[in-house]
Amino acid sequence: MISVAINGYGTIGKRVADAVAAQEDMKVAGVSKTKPDFEARVAIEKGYDLYVSIPEREKLFDEAGIPVSGTVEDMLEEADIVVDATPEGIGAKNLEMYREKGIKAIFQGGEKHDAIGLSFNSFANYHESLGADYTRVVSCNTTGLCRTLKPIDDLCGIKKVRAVMVRRGADPVQVKKGPINAIVPNPPTVPSHHGPDLKTVMKGVNIHTVALLVPTTLMHQHNIMVELEDPVEADEIKARLDETTRVMLVRASEGLASTAEIMEYAKELGRSRNDLFEIPVWEESINVVDGELFYMQAVHQESDAVPESVDAIRALLELEEDNMKSIMKTNRAMGIL
Amino acid sequence: MISVAINGYGTIGKRVADAVAAQEDMKVAGVSKTKPDFEARVAIEKGYDLYVSIPEREKLFDEAGIPVSGTVEDMLEEADIVVDATPEGIGAKNLEMYREKGIKAIFQGGEKHDAIGLSFNSFANYHESLGADYTRVVSCNTTGLCRTLKPIDDLCGIKKVRAVMVRRGADPVQVKKGPINAIVPNPPTVPSHHGPDLKTVMKGVNIHTVALLVPTTLMHQHNIMVELEDPVEADEIKARLDETTRVMLVRASEGLASTAEIMEYAKELGRSRNDLFEIPVWEESINVVDGELFYMQAVHQESDAVPESVDAIRALLELEEDNMKSIMKTNRAMGIL
Amino acid sequence: MISVAINGYGTIGKRVADAVAAQEDMKVAGVSKTKPDFEARVAIEKGYDLYVSIPEREKLFDEAGIPVSGTVEDMLEEADIVVDATPEGIGAKNLEMYREKGIKAIFQGGEKHDAIGLSFNSFANYHESLGADYTRVVSCNTTGLCRTLKPIDDLCGIKKVRAVMVRRGADPVQVKKGPINAIVPNPPTVPSHHGPDLKTVMKGVNIHTVALLVPTTLMHQHNIMVELEDPVEADEIKARLDETTRVMLVRASEGLASTAEIMEYAKELGRSRNDLFEIPVWEESINVVDGELFYMQAVHQESDAVPESVDAIRALLELEEDNMKSIMKTNRAMGIL
Amino acid sequence: MISVAINGYGTIGKRVADAVAAQEDMKVAGVSKTKPDFEARVAIEKGYDLYVSIPEREKLFDEAGIPVSGTVEDMLEEADIVVDATPEGIGAKNLEMYREKGIKAIFQGGEKHDAIGLSFNSFANYHESLGADYTRVVSCNTTGLCRTLKPIDDLCGIKKVRAVMVRRGADPVQVKKGPINAIVPNPPTVPSHHGPDLKTVMKGVNIHTVALLVPTTLMHQHNIMVELEDPVEADEIKARLDETTRVMLVRASEGLASTAEIMEYAKELGRSRNDLFEIPVWEESINVVDGELFYMQAVHQESDAVPESVDAIRALLELEEDNMKSIMKTNRAMGIL
Ligand SMILES: NC(=O)c1ccc[n+]([C@@H]2O[C@H](COP(=O)([O-])OP(=O)(O)OC[C@H]3O[C@@H](n4cnc5c(N)ncnc54)[C@H](O)[C@@H]3O)[C@@H](O)[C@H]2O)c1
Ligand SMILES: NC(=O)c1ccc[n+]([C@@H]2O[C@H](COP(=O)([O-])OP(=O)(O)OC[C@H]3O[C@@H](n4cnc5c(N)ncnc54)[C@H](O)[C@@H]3O)[C@@H](O)[C@H]2O)c1
Ligand SMILES: NC(=O)c1ccc[n+]([C@@H]2O[C@H](COP(=O)([O-])OP(=O)(O)OC[C@H]3O[C@@H](n4cnc5c(N)ncnc54)[C@H](O)[C@@H]3O)[C@@H](O)[C@H]2O)c1
Ligand SMILES: NC(=O)c1ccc[n+]([C@@H]2O[C@H](COP(=O)([O-])OP(=O)(O)OC[C@H]3O[C@@H](n4cnc5c(N)ncnc54)[C@H](O)[C@@H]3O)[C@@H](O)[C@H]2O)c1
Repeated sequence: MISVAINGYGTIGKRVADAVAAQEDMKVAGVSKTKPDFEARVAIEKGYDLYVSIPEREKLFDEAGIPVSGTVEDMLEEADIVVDATPEGIGAKNLEMYREKGIKAIFQGGEKHDAIGLSFNSFANYHESLGADYTRVVSCNTTGLCRTLKPIDDLCGIKKVRAVMVRRGADPVQVKKGPINAIVPNPPTVPSHHGPDLKTVMKGVNIHTVALLVPTTLMHQHNIMVELEDPVEADEIKARLDETTRVMLVRASEGLASTAEIMEYAKELGRSRNDLFEIPVWEESINVVDGELFYMQAVHQESDAVPESVDAIRALLELEEDNMKSIMKTNRAMGIL
Repeated sequence: MISVAINGYGTIGKRVADAVAAQEDMKVAGVSKTKPDFEARVAIEKGYDLYVSIPEREKLFDEAGIPVSGTVEDMLEEADIVVDATPEGIGAKNLEMYREKGIKAIFQGGEKHDAIGLSFNSFANYHESLGADYTRVVSCNTTGLCRTLKPIDDLCGIKKVRAVMVRRGADPVQVKKGPINAIVPNPPTVPSHHGPDLKTVMKGVNIHTVALLVPTTLMHQHNIMVELEDPVEADEIKARLDETTRVMLVRASEGLASTAEIMEYAKELGRSRNDLFEIPVWEESINVVDGELFYMQAVHQESDAVPESVDAIRALLELEEDNMKSIMKTNRAMGIL
Repeated sequence: MISVAINGYGTIGKRVADAVAAQEDMKVAGVSKTKPDFEARVAIEKGYDLYVSIPEREKLFDEAGIPVSGTVEDMLEEADIVVDATPEGIGAKNLEMYREKGIKAIFQGGEKHDAIGLSFNSFANYHESLGADYTRVVSCNTTGLCRTLKPIDDLCGIKKVRAVMVRRGADPVQVKKGPINAIVPNPPTVPSHHGPDLKTVMKGVNIHTVALLVPTTLMHQHNIMVELEDPVEADEIKARLDETTRVMLVRASEGLASTAEIMEYAKELGRSRNDLFEIPVWEESINVVDGELFYMQAVHQESDAVPESVDAIRALLELEEDNMKSIMKTNRAMGIL
Repeated sequence: MISVAINGYGTIGKRVADAVAAQEDMKVAGVSKTKPDFEARVAIEKGYDLYVSIPEREKLFDEAGIPVSGTVEDMLEEADIVVDATPEGIGAKNLEMYREKGIKAIFQGGEKHDAIGLSFNSFANYHESLGADYTRVVSCNTTGLCRTLKPIDDLCGIKKVRAVMVRRGADPVQVKKGPINAIVPNPPTVPSHHGPDLKTVMKGVNIHTVALLVPTTLMHQHNIMVELEDPVEADEIKARLDETTRVMLVRASEGLASTAEIMEYAKELGRSRNDLFEIPVWEESINVVDGELFYMQAVHQESDAVPESVDAIRALLELEEDNMKSIMKTNRAMGIL
């Protein structure tokens, strides 16, 4: 039973904690919080040991009646590995602490590839992280691209990808972030950094990406155009994506015509927090014209890369040599299709 | 074991179905759908018998591979009582069919009080519906008002209430409804119909309401001002609301400073569909100034009145004489605080 | 002095009326309204003769104290040509009436090309409409694509275009339309109809488009990828677009990083109704990679095609043989850059 | 001809500059900017002398090709009075500089009353600022309350006011501010500070306010309940508001049923930047029940207090003893009803 510390119990961290707790071969060593807010309170109710990220704030937790088990450094003592889910840029700073403590660590997509040295996707390059000390689970957007492009590449080869990524402006809980009524090229330079990010896990893929922000909180949406090496029929693509795990075909004609309706579907499925770990692809959108594949997909930014964090634990600790074995274990525990 | 039909398996109906299924003394006879969409598909996966509302459409369900058990009339044969959760105005039309079939029925807040003749809230007037043939669970907004005003009235008497209700423009799944960027007085006449609606369950209360729509999907928000008969301290109000079931105090200072953060809290609690059956009241907002109580609350429109529908079943069928006994049964089964 | 009737004084019609009134060689014969609302009241204040679209409603205008000059048929008697700006699909029905009255007519992008038989853009195919009886100004999105793709095609030839069009969910005044919080593939099939629509004015261009709706009211946003015949440097593209009329380069780095800030810029320019007739292209986004041009632009859907409607009048009535002469006349009168 | 410096050429400052430039007895001495963005560029095009707020940044303006006339201190030398429209809290810091320079100054509602010592509304307390050195134009919300409550108080006396203020989350240009999908009690304590703020200009009025933020950019919306001293009919209130300048009655039934449609109306009126300096009150909402007046109004936050800034100049410099004379001068120059 591997013991996993979660440093940063926010949008990603709390999901990773629950995903780890659901696995047969892992347990949660503890989770860390900077503030005694409602998330801290619920973490305790769920039975997680709580550690403070900022030692001086321990008093605030006491005042709020929230029991604390120590500091982040104490938490690392209890664990075999740490999943860092602190905000963008903090993870890279934490790396030094992990090195000193001699503990392996998994970082999130907000960190730069170069700062960590290695990136991870369960399907594209699991083996590269086998036994490594540190790896970075690529961002929600990059994970989403990888999930569908990898099986397409396997099926018929990819010559060139163009993807326009329409990103949610903020997570549901981030009420201070906008835009309220605007479309924001982000970045305004083209191509965006998402293409190069994909290449850290899907080496050599030829991709250009364009990204923007819009006033929604639910999901990102991707518009993907793929020049194929060996042109195939749209139906072959559909069949391949349909049989690919962590990808699901959805039909606008069945009432799943928008990101909101897909999130409603996740509610119906009864997943924890209404999460959708799979990448939904609109079946109607899949089309091959002149040897070029077109499709549209959505990405539940808060959860899609969470199963990858679990797989990354197995890769770093060499609990599983074969990526598909880890993927299937993770899926079963989390109820992923 | 009472068998309950759910006519109209939409936002409210699907929640009532799950709430009924969770009770010890009830089971779902079947649910009805007009279209073979993703909700129909999941209803089958959940094990509900599916009936078609529009007989001619049975073919569409067949084509979609969704098994149907008959028409709504067939469903009524299987049931002891029906909960009607069809869209606003349809319920009143269905009443004739229920009368012909000799089946008791519960309607939702979209129907007019006069069309049904009797209205229902578990706390305010449970006994009035005991043994009745038909009753109407008041709307999400009226239920929300009733949940906090009833205990306040019990505690210290209400002289006059003024409430401004800031309503969500559409439910999350209603992607065709706006507004995208506007505040809409709705109705533009003042006072609104919500005050009179409250009086159908809380007889004689002196209330004036004002209502508007804003571009959000998550929750309604109410701003309530109550002139008290017997002025009390704010702390007494807090204590009373805190101990009242189906009401919860939340603190902006603990990260619950908006409707979005409260919905995030519901996710953390792990409720089905992230529902929040309780009415959250912002503790910081509760204040008594010159004998007048001020407070702010939110209402999860999709779910707050669902436990009331369950209680209404017990009232009509006289399964429980005492409202608090039904309330506690319902709560226990649904995990309500 | 040509006399122009405007049938349908809504979002587009009221702008066309003001644009016509601003021209030296034209005047407004009258405008038509279906309802005596605030737009009707202001039309009268502006000095336009008002005609009713639905004769039986004349009484409502009387009651509201809004003077009416007759019916739409009366208005057509006063005019040399009519610009139809009625809602999608109504224009094609009106065609029969215009034919009977023997009056030339210009339609908007909501009508289908086939229903009118001819489509129009001032830059791409002005000459095709010279002397014609009917033509259709292509939609706001298609006009936006044409404005930048035509000069690029002229400069260096276009091999293939891919465009992802992120569309505003509703116009600012359409408060009943959503989505409030969703991204909606629209259509969910790919490629969308916008590509074929562009070919009605830019014959033979090889283009595939993808379209979606997002929760904003201000502008559409386009992400354009162009494989070039004769690759050129990004700077040549910038220079060409900079010198093209009805196109403007904007810089995110100068505070114009979103559609909202661009609309603020239009306010600063002091245009009537804050309209932006030009297509703004983000200068930072213009890039040529491996012979492929990338850029991002925005489209003020309410106004971008309005100058084209004015030019179309000159084409149909053969007031100007040379498209650039009409364009310059229109621009000068409207203050377009 | 009074020469007026505008320190802080943002949302409010640029409007004050144009309003001052439109007056017969005033001219703009210069305006200040911190960054060489599009606003700076347009300021120059409009003919305003531009001064830099942060001297070290002058180089950036040079690089952008935007000519600068000096620093803020230089600008003050050219002026008889300064209108400070810098962000919340900066104005109070600037007061020291104005004192040293011996120049009178007008501040905006973001500053605290106590920091300036005197507050201003053209209708409520113009005379208090006559000849003063410094005054503060109360905020957009407070100005909006004052505009309608003052004439009502004059007509029939006010016993007690309750107002719920539904505020826009961000100005249109503020794309980084949210919320995208939430209602935010702001402040979560009740009553809010807006009531006390009104008392700085309408002494002794008995008012309690409640405030929240919603995801819209266009206007604030106020729900007002007034217990009257001498009860009058709703029609008398309507007549009084109708004849009050800087207030306008609007009718939902004429298509002005929301803040978006009112902003569309402002577009039709052809005001600069589509501003609405008047406070629109929904005629349908005005109602008197049991001696209590109810009504709903909207506030165009970006512009409603701008004419007050102009009047404040006349008060401080004693250009006009009589407030109504200043109000009428300002109105005429700005086209206000
Ligand atoms: N939110 C998403 O959509 C999303 C998706 C994929 C990847 N990511 C990445 O995941 C990482 C975490 O993002 P998030 O959205 O969960 O952020 P978050 O803000 O929701 O959570 C971060 C948590 O870290 C805590 N924290 C802050 N400073 C800390 C410190 N010094 N030490 C320990 N804990 C600290 C915060 O209190 C918070 O609980 C980032 O790298 C982000 O880019 C986010
Ligand atoms: N959505 C809310 O926030 C909310 C809250 C409280 C009360 N209500 C009330 O609950 C009722 C249902 O509202 P909803 O939001 O669940 O609506 P909904 O549109 O989500 O669901 C209604 C369901 O009824 C079905 N239906 C339509 N016509 C039918 C017919 N003739 N026979 C049988 N089924 C039919 C529809 O297919 C749909 O599944 C209304 O009275 C509404 O006012 C809604
Ligand atoms: N709004 C846009 O963004 C936009 C952009 C480009 C093109 N268009 C196209 O312009 C056309 C008009 O669209 P709009 O947005 O101005 O619509 P709108 O609804 O704002 O205006 C249409 C006007 O026509 C009137 N009308 C309705 N039925 C009529 C009838 N039978 N006879 C005469 N008048 C009638 C309506 O009262 C209204 O005033 C459509 O073809 C649309 O597709 C719209
Ligand atoms: N925006 C509104 O809705 C609104 C309404 C009424 C009152 N106010 C008040 O008006 C004031 C200005 O607000 P705003 O919305 O116009 O802000 P803004 O941010 O739009 O504009 C402020 C301007 O001041 C400049 N500035 C910043 N620091 C400066 C400094 N040290 N010296 C000189 N200039 C500086 C900024 O560059 C900017 O141009 C605030 O007190 C605000 O509370 C705003």
